[in-house]
Amino acid sequence: MPSTENQQQLDIATERAKCTFNPASFTPLFYGGEDRMRRLRKIEAMIDNDPVFDRSDRYFLGRTERFKRALAMVKRYVELRNEYGFTPDESAYFKVYVDDYIPVHLHESMFLPVLRAQASEEQAKKWIPLAENYHYIGCYAQTELGHGSALSRLETIATLDIERDEWVINSPTQSSAKYWIGTLGKMANHAVVQAKLIINGKDYGAHPFLVPIRSLKDHTLLPGVFIKDMGPKQGAISMDNGYARFDHVRIPRENMLMRFSQVSRDGVYSKPIHPKLAYGGMTAVRTTLINHSALSMARGATIAIRYCAVRRQGNVNVATNLESQVLDYPGVQYRVLPLLSHAFATIFSGYWMNEMYAQYNADITKGDTSLLKDVHVYSSGLKSYCTKLGADGIEEARRCLGGHGFSLFSGMIDFHRQFLATVTYEGENALLTQQVSRYLLKLYKDVIRNPNVKLSPPSKYIFSLVDRNAFVSERCQARSLQDFYKIEVILAALHHRAARLIYELAQAEKSGTDWPQLNLECMRLSKAHVQYILVENFYNGIRKRYNSSPSASPEERNLFLAVESVYNLHVFYTIEVELSEFLEDGYFSPEQASWIHEGVKRCLQAVRPNAVGFSDCFGFTDSFLNSALGSYDGRAYERLAELAEGEPLNSKEMMENGVIWGYEQYLKPLIYGEAGPYKGGNGTSKL
Amino acid sequence: MPSTENQQQLDIATERAKCTFNPASFTPLFYGGEDRMRRLRKIEAMIDNDPVFDRSDRYFLGRTERFKRALAMVKRYVELRNEYGFTPDESAYFKVYVDDYIPVHLHESMFLPVLRAQASEEQAKKWIPLAENYHYIGCYAQTELGHGSALSRLETIATLDIERDEWVINSPTQSSAKYWIGTLGKMANHAVVQAKLIINGKDYGAHPFLVPIRSLKDHTLLPGVFIKDMGPKQGAISMDNGYARFDHVRIPRENMLMRFSQVSRDGVYSKPIHPKLAYGGMTAVRTTLINHSALSMARGATIAIRYCAVRRQGNVNVATNLESQVLDYPGVQYRVLPLLSHAFATIFSGYWMNEMYAQYNADITKGDTSLLKDVHVYSSGLKSYCTKLGADGIEEARRCLGGHGFSLFSGMIDFHRQFLATVTYEGENALLTQQVSRYLLKLYKDVIRNPNVKLSPPSKYIFSLVDRNAFVSERCQARSLQDFYKIEVILAALHHRAARLIYELAQAEKSGTDWPQLNLECMRLSKAHVQYILVENFYNGIRKRYNSSPSASPEERNLFLAVESVYNLHVFYTIEVELSEFLEDGYFSPEQASWIHEGVKRCLQAVRPNAVGFSDCFGFTDSFLNSALGSYDGRAYERLAELAEGEPLNSKEMMENGVIWGYEQYLKPLIYGEAGPYKGGNGTSKL
Repeated sequence: MPSTENQQQLDIATERAKCTFNPASFTPLFYGGEDRMRRLRKIEAMIDNDPVFDRSDRYFLGRTERFKRALAMVKRYVELRNEYGFTPDESAYFKVYVDDYIPVHLHESMFLPVLRAQASEEQAKKWIPLAENYHYIGCYAQTELGHGSALSRLETIATLDIERDEWVINSPTQSSAKYWIGTLGKMANHAVVQAKLIINGKDYGAHPFLVPIRSLKDHTLLPGVFIKDMGPKQGAISMDNGYARFDHVRIPRENMLMRFSQVSRDGVYSKPIHPKLAYGGMTAVRTTLINHSALSMARGATIAIRYCAVRRQGNVNVATNLESQVLDYPGVQYRVLPLLSHAFATIFSGYWMNEMYAQYNADITKGDTSLLKDVHVYSSGLKSYCTKLGADGIEEARRCLGGHGFSLFSGMIDFHRQFLATVTYEGENALLTQQVSRYLLKLYKDVIRNPNVKLSPPSKYIFSLVDRNAFVSERCQARSLQDFYKIEVILAALHHRAARLIYELAQAEKSGTDWPQLNLECMRLSKAHVQYILVENFYNGIRKRYNSSPSASPEERNLFLAVESVYNLHVFYTIEVELSEFLEDGYFSPEQASWIHEGVKRCLQAVRPNAVGFSDCFGFTDSFLNSALGSYDGRAYERLAELAEGEPLNSKEMMENGVIWGYEQYLKPLIYGEAGPYKGGNGTSKL
Repeated sequence: MPSTENQQQLDIATERAKCTFNPASFTPLFYGGEDRMRRLRKIEAMIDNDPVFDRSDRYFLGRTERFKRALAMVKRYVELRNEYGFTPDESAYFKVYVDDYIPVHLHESMFLPVLRAQASEEQAKKWIPLAENYHYIGCYAQTELGHGSALSRLETIATLDIERDEWVINSPTQSSAKYWIGTLGKMANHAVVQAKLIINGKDYGAHPFLVPIRSLKDHTLLPGVFIKDMGPKQGAISMDNGYARFDHVRIPRENMLMRFSQVSRDGVYSKPIHPKLAYGGMTAVRTTLINHSALSMARGATIAIRYCAVRRQGNVNVATNLESQVLDYPGVQYRVLPLLSHAFATIFSGYWMNEMYAQYNADITKGDTSLLKDVHVYSSGLKSYCTKLGADGIEEARRCLGGHGFSLFSGMIDFHRQFLATVTYEGENALLTQQVSRYLLKLYKDVIRNPNVKLSPPSKYIFSLVDRNAFVSERCQARSLQDFYKIEVILAALHHRAARLIYELAQAEKSGTDWPQLNLECMRLSKAHVQYILVENFYNGIRKRYNSSPSASPEERNLFLAVESVYNLHVFYTIEVELSEFLEDGYFSPEQASWIHEGVKRCLQAVRPNAVGFSDCFGFTDSFLNSALGSYDGRAYERLAELAEGEPLNSKEMMENGVIWGYEQYLKPLIYGEAGPYKGGNGTSKL
C-alpha cells in the first residue's frame, strides 16, 4: 500500500486519467478569449517571478505588515505598468492576480473612471494625465459614517463663495465624515468628494468636487483636512480605507466636476439633461462583479474538488483497504459540485452582460439611451444573485474540507473574506432586488395596458399574464424525469414561476401595501427572474461556443457533453433549491418534484468522474490559489506540514527547543505550584 | 432636528419605551437560572475589572500578539480559579466570557474530562490532582494529519515491549502526525494520545495513552518528541493548535488509560464490557455546543437588532424628514428576527438535552444504559442543526449591517469566526445526520416488525407509517391561517413530513442502495426530525416556565405573549424555509402554503415592536459584545469613530501629519514622476 502522500498523488492522477475532455480547451472561456489569455498569462508570470509580490508568507502577516508589503507592491506595479503600457483591463487583472488589495486600488478603479465620466472635456484634459501618471493619487469619497449610498441624504456640504469664486467644503457633523473610503487613509492626495451643492442657501443636491487633501510636495495633510485610517475590517486588510472630515476647506469653483451640471462664475447652476447618465460607473463595476463572482466560485470549486478527491475518510473498500475519496459521497458532491456549475453559469451571463454593456456604450455615443434601463436592471439583478451564490457557495464548499478547511493554508479563507464584501458594496444585494422587481412590475403594467407593447426577449414571458385564466391553469408538461432535460420544459417552468411572482407583487401593490413593505416579494421575484436569465444564457452560450452538431469531432463532442453535464446540474440544482415556488401554486405535481430530486442525484453522478478535470479547466496557477489543499499535484498533507515551518510562533523568538516565550513568567509558576492549590471541584465555590 | 448621534440614542430609547415586557425577566433563562446567573455575573465583573483580560484593542492584534496576551490570561485565570475554587462549570464560563481562547483551553475541556472518564480509579487518584493543579498541563491528541475522527484509521501505534514493560509510541508516516491538537503546540507537558494498541503483532485498535511530552522541570521537549505550532487558522487564533510526531517514545505500561480496557504485566489484553461507554465525552461536548449555539445566535441578534434600530436608510418620512429605521423593512426583519427566534428555540432544547443527559448519568451509576442511544442521537442531531443555524444566521444578520458590518468593530466578525468551527468539530454536521437517520430507520423497522413495540415519545409518530394507506392520504387540516397557530396542526405537519422521509429512506435502502450513497436522504431526514424536536421543546418549555393561565398577572401575561410571539416566528419561518417538503407529497395545499408565507410576515410584525427589548433580555454586557454597532446605548457612529483612534496604522510609527511610513521610498518616486511616463491606455500594450 502506498503512503498517504503517494496515494494522494496517485488519486489525483487517476482522476485526470479518467477525464473525458481536455481541460485546457475550456480555459480561454474563463480568460475572456485566447488573445486575452495570452496577455494575462504574461502578467501572471511577471508577478510570480517578482519577489515584491511573493505571497508565500502572506497568511502569517497582520494588518500593518500586509499594508507595508502592499506599499512596495504599489511602486512596483506602477513601474511595470509604465514599462509595458498596460491597458486598463490588463491593469485590473494585474491587481486581481496579485490577490491582495494594493492601497491605490481605488485610484484606478473609482477615481479615474469618475474623472473620465464626470469631468468636463477641459477638466479631463488637465486632470486625467496627472492622475494616470500618479502625480495625482485619488479616491472617491461618497459614503459617510451615517449614510450609505443614498446621495440625497449626504451631509457634507459645498457652499459657493461667489466673491472668492470658491467652494467651501465642510463636514458639519460627525456622521457626515466620509467613511470607508479606500485609498483615502494613507495614499491619496486628491479626493472626488460628493457633497451637497449650496448656492445662496439653496440646496441643489449631491455633486462631485475634486478636493486636494494632501500636499503634492510632501504628502502632509492640507489645512482643514482631518484623515484617519478607519480600523481593521473583514477582507481587504491591506487597504487604507479611511475617514475624513473637512473644516471649511476651500477649492476653486472650477474643481466641481462639470460634465453634467455646471456652475458659472456668477453662481448660476445648470442641471444635466439626462441625470441618470451620471450613474454609469456603478453599472460598470457591477458588470465586472459578475465575472469576478464566476472566477471566485471557480477558485473555491477548484480547491474543494481537488482536496475532496485526495481526502479519504469513512467507508472502507475491503479489496484495497482504502477509505473512500470523500468526493464519492453524495453529501459532499451536493455541497461542492453545484458551485462548479454556478461558476460556469455565471461566466456565460457575464459574457451576455458584457455584450449588452458594450452595445449600450456604442449606443450612447449616438445619443441612444434605450438600453440604459436594461443595463442597469440586469447588472443589478445578476450582481445581487451571483455574489450571494458565490459568498454562500464558497463557504459551504469550505465546510466540506473538514478540519483542514479552517487552516488559512487551505487557501479558502483569505480570498473568501475579500469576496464577502461584494454582497454589500455597489448596491446591497437585497436592495438591488427592488430595481429588478420595479422594472418587471412596470413591464407587467405596460402589458396589461397594451398587450401589443414591445418587450425585450428576456421579459417576453410576461405576456402570459394577459390571459389570467389560461395562466392559472398552466401546468408543467414533463411526463418523465427525462423531459426535464428539455430546455422548453425548463424555460416554461422558470417563466411561469417568475410571471406568477410578478402577478402577486402587482396584487400586493394594488391592495395598497406601501412599496417599502414589499421587500420580501421583491427579493423572491428578482431571484426568480435572474435564475431564468442564468439558465437561458448558459443554454445559449454553450451552443454558441461548443459544437453540439452531429458533425462534431469526438473531441468536440466530449467537450460539449462535459459542459452540458454541468449545465444540467445547474438547472436541476437551482430548481430543487426553489422547489416550493414551483409547487405552491400547483404548477409542479408531487411526482414531478420527485423527478427533480432524482435528477439532481443523476447530475451529480454525471459530473463526478470529470470533477478534477473541471477543476483544471479554469487555469488557476498554484501560486494564485496559494492553497495547501488545492494545489495541482494533490500533495495536500505534505504542503500543510511544510507551510507550518514558517509560522511565527515557531520562530526562534517565540519558541526554542519546545519552550515558549513567556514560560518563566506565565507557565513555570503554575507548573511549580506557585498559583496556590485548587480546592474547588466539589460542586461549590466561593462565588 | 437632533444630530444623527442624538437621534440614535433617541431611537433606542423609544424602542425600549414601547417594549411590552421586562427584558430582565428573561435573562435567567439564558444564564441557566437565578443562582447560576448570580455567580456568573460575579465572574463577569472579575474579568471586566482585570486589565489582563482587557479586550479594548483586541481587534488590532495579530496572531502572535494575541497569543502573548492569552498566555498572561492563563496565569491570571488559574490564580483566580484557585482563589475562588471555581466549579468546572464556572471555569468554563470564565473562558466563555473572556471570549478569546486561552491556550490551555483543551487542558480543562478535553484532557481532564478524558482522564476522569477513561483512567482507572488508581490512575485517576494519581493523575487528576496533578492535572487539576496545573502541574500536568495536558491535551488530547486524537486527530491526525491524514485522519479525522475515525479512530479505526489512526496510524499512530503503541507497541508493547513486554520485556521492559513499556509502550513504544511511534508515528510511522507524515500523515500519522497528530494534528490540530489544541494546547499541544506550546503549553502541554502531557498528551493523551490515541494510538493503535499492538501486542505481539496483533492490532487491538485505538486506545488512549498518557504520554509525557515536555520536561516538567524546564518545559523542553522530551527525547523523540517533535512538536510545532500548525499555523494560522480561522477562529481561535490565540490557541496553539499543534502537530506532533513521536519517534519510538517509551512510556510505562501503566500509562495506558485502563478504565475500560486493560493490559496486564504479561501482555494480556482485556476488552471493555460496553465499548460505547468510552465515547461519553463527545456527547457531553455536543450537549454544551447546543447551548453555545443559542448564546451565539443571541449575541448576533443583539448586535444586529440594536444597530438596525438606530440605522436609518432609504424611505423618508415626510413629517419628520427622517429616513426609516432599517429594522422597519420586512427584508431586514426577515434576515434578523428569525435568528432571535432560533436562539430561544435552541435554549429550550438545550435544557431538554441537559435534563436527558443528567438522567442518563444518573442511570448509568445504577448500571442502566438504556438512554445511551437517545443521548447520543439527540446530542448529534441538535448539535448538527443548531450550529449550522447559528453559523449561517449570524452571517446573514451581519450582511444586514451594511458597510459597517465589515468593520471588526461591528463585533460580528471575530466571534463568528470562532463559532464557525462548531459546524465541523465534535462530529462534522453532515456526518452526524447519519446517526440520527440510522436510529430512526431502525425504529421504523422495529415498528413494522412489531406495531406494539415501545418507542420514546419523540419518535412515537413513526407508528403512523404502519398503515400505509392511511398515511399517504394524510392531509394538513388547517382551514385558515389561524389554524397554523395551533400546536396540533404544526406537530401533525412536522410528524407527517419526518415520517415520510423515514419511509423514503427505508425504501431507498430496501432497493439496494448502499448506505454511503444515502447521505442526502439522511441530511434531509435528520433536519426534519430535529426541527420537530425544537418546536415541541419550545412549545413545552414556554408553558413550563411562563404563566399562560387566565390567572396570570398582566406582567406575567405580557411575558408569555412576548415569548409566544417569538415561538410563532420560529415555527412559521422554519416551515416556510422547508415548504417544499410539505408540498411535495400533497400534504399541504397551495392555499395552505400561501398562509405560511402570510404567517411569516405577521409574525415579523408581531415581534418587531419588542425587538430591542428582546435584544436586552439575553443580558450581554457591552464589554462582552465588544461592538461599536450593538452597544446598549445605541451610540454606533460615535463608537466607530472613537475606536479608530487605536488603529496601529494611525500610530506615530506609521503616520505623522498624514504622511505614511514608506512615503519617501514608495510613494514620492511615483508622485514625482520617477517611475517613468505612462504611455498605455490606447487599447494596446507591449504584452
